[in-house]
This record gives sequence, C-alpha cells and structure tokens, in this order.
Amino acid sequence: MGKGNETKAAILEHAMALASRVGLGGLSIGRLAEELEMSKSGLFAHFRSKEALQVQVLDAAADRFVNVVVAPALKKARGEPRIRALLENLLAWDRARTLPGGCIFVAAAVELDDQPGPARDRLVQLQRDRQETFATAARIAKEEGQFRADLDPLQFAHDLYGIVLGYHHAARLLRDPQAETRARNAFETLLQHARSRR
Amino acid sequence: MGKGNETKAAILEHAMALASRVGLGGLSIGRLAEELEMSKSGLFAHFRSKEALQVQVLDAAADRFVNVVVAPALKKARGEPRIRALLENLLAWDRARTLPGGCIFVAAAVELDDQPGPARDRLVQLQRDRQETFATAARIAKEEGQFRADLDPLQFAHDLYGIVLGYHHAARLLRDPQAETRARNAFETLLQHARSRR
Repeated sequence: MGKGNETKAAILEHAMALASRVGLGGLSIGRLAEELEMSKSGLFAHFRSKEALQVQVLDAAADRFVNVVVAPALKKARGEPRIRALLENLLAWDRARTLPGGCIFVAAAVELDDQPGPARDRLVQLQRDRQETFATAARIAKEEGQFRADLDPLQFAHDLYGIVLGYHHAARLLRDPQAETRARNAFETLLQHARSRR
Repeated sequence: MGKGNETKAAILEHAMALASRVGLGGLSIGRLAEELEMSKSGLFAHFRSKEALQVQVLDAAADRFVNVVVAPALKKARGEPRIRALLENLLAWDRARTLPGGCIFVAAAVELDDQPGPARDRLVQLQRDRQETFATAARIAKEEGQFRADLDPLQFAHDLYGIVLGYHHAARLLRDPQAETRARNAFETLLQHARSRR
C-alpha cells in the first residue's frame, strides 16, 4: 500500500467508527475533517462527495465483515460447525471495539431505507451478498445431510439475520445482560427446526 | 378534547409520520413548523424543547400501538389466537400509511441507542412494556396448556421481536416481496418450538 492508500485506509477506519455511533447521515466531510484535524480540501481530494464517502465506508465495512465474520467461518468444517462460527463471529462483530456503536449495517439499514441514492443501493447489494453467504452455508449443511432436504436456505438466512437484529436491539438499546444468551437460544431453536424431519 | 388538545394531537400525528421517515433526530421544531406552516413560537408553546417533542412523539406512537396492535389482540381468545393476532397486527402496523417509514420504534431504537437522554430513556421503558406484553401473551398460552411448561416467556418475547425486526429489514430496506411470508414462516417455527415437548 502506498502512503496515499494508507492515509485513506486510516480515514475510512475512523469514518467507520464514527458512522457506527452517529449514522451514515452524520458522517459529513466537514465533521470528519474536524475529528481527524485534517483540511476539508484534503478529504475532498480523497472522497469528492459525502455520498462517495458513505459508499466507501460501507465498502470498507463490508471488507472487514468478510475478514472477521465470513473468512474465519469458512475455515471451519462444512455444515453446522461453519454456521455456528458464523453466529459467534456475528455477535463478536456487533461488540467490536472498532465499531463503538455496533454493526454499521444495522444502523445504516434503518437510516437509509427511506433515502434513495447510491449509499442505499450499495447497502442493499451488500445485504443481499450477506444473505447469500448465509444461504450458501445452509445449502452446504443440507448437502452434508445435517439439515433437512426441504429446508429453504433463504428462509434460514432471513431467520438468522432476525436473530442478529434482535441481539443488536437487546444489547444496544435495552442493554440486556442476557442479550447473548437470548441470541444463542434463538439460534438453537433455528438449528433444531432446520434439522428436524417433519 | 379541547381545541388546544386537538391541535396538539394533529401536530403529534404529523410529527410521528415525519419521524418515521427522517428519524427522531430529524424532528426539529423548526422543520415541523415549516411543514405545518405554523410559527415556531406556537410550536414551542406546545413542546418547549426538541427533547420534549421527541418524548411526546414516542408516547403518542405508544398510545397508537396499544390501540391498533395490542387492544384488538386482547379481544381474541387467550393463548395462540391472541399471539397470532399480535403478529398480524405488528406486520400491519409496520405497513400502516400513517407511518410512511415503518415502525418508529425500530428506527428510534437504532438512532437512540448511543444517545443518552430523556428520549432514549422513554424508548427503553416503552420497549420493555412491549416486551412484557409479548411475554404475558406467552405466559397465558402456557396456562392454557398450549405452550410447554418450561418455555421462557421472555425468550419468546425476544424471539417474536426478532421476527418483527427481520420483517422490517426485509420489507423496508430490501423491498423483498416475500417479507411477509418470511415473517410468518419464522413465526410458525417459533410457535412449533413453543408447543413441542422436548
């Protein structure tokens, strides 16, 4: 990485943490310049517009999501062990110190759902990719004979994400000390249902 | 209701719809005054501060939630029929035309979770009330012998809300035409688990 790229990566790192607290909407080039003690014109040279900054923050978060949630899970055995690793990594991701306000995709989803534009479009694409990752893991568990043959992998992916959203709500808003236990219990119910023959 | 109260109710109605689209943070007295073509000082007389306005919007939304989600469900037979009515009313609530951006509690939860203050405190209280309503419905289904004796009603309430959050995400962000079907399928899994003896 050249020096310019390193600087840009460090800016995006900071922007990601900021967006996790104040939302993508609060992420202006002006505010970022202030927090980083950089000139606005310097930041403009990197990002051109607030929209471009938002899209790049989403992309940077998606890269990290792949590195810390998806890739380590792929090293686990196919099927249930991999799906269990996905859940644990998802919970850890929402608690990560690099994201002081929790998963930025959860926050961005609610923020952008009524705001057409490039950031919303990118987020939808990233969330569909994430859904496809979950569905693929479920498909593999079917191939392995661990999940029942008539399980709908996209339903499984939807339900798994509902568990993540419920966890985020319980942990972040309600500060429920049971949030993780609740998420794991919900996950066991989902697995049980995925396994059972009707 | 006196004329002053009627005016206030109409203002809160508009504020609720606005907050469902732009969030509670976007709900300033200035913006509301502009949209309603009222004077800022007139609105200040009703609400005193942005924080007070936010709290009152949450309370108004909670009143309506009771009227359109909880109360009609309480008219259904105790146990599963009542819980089914809760789910259907929750889905309808998120689609209601009076809330063009969907459930304002979902949006506010993500917005306020990192913002200490009276609005966050009120939201937490309302969400705990809502959770207690769900848990009570599950307790009654246990009393009726429909749900298993060792079911944890608070876990059931948590899981039911995860389904609502998953629906909101799929319908609002992804515009998934299957969002309702997904929510109902997840709900059937939850019911099946609540019923079954291990």
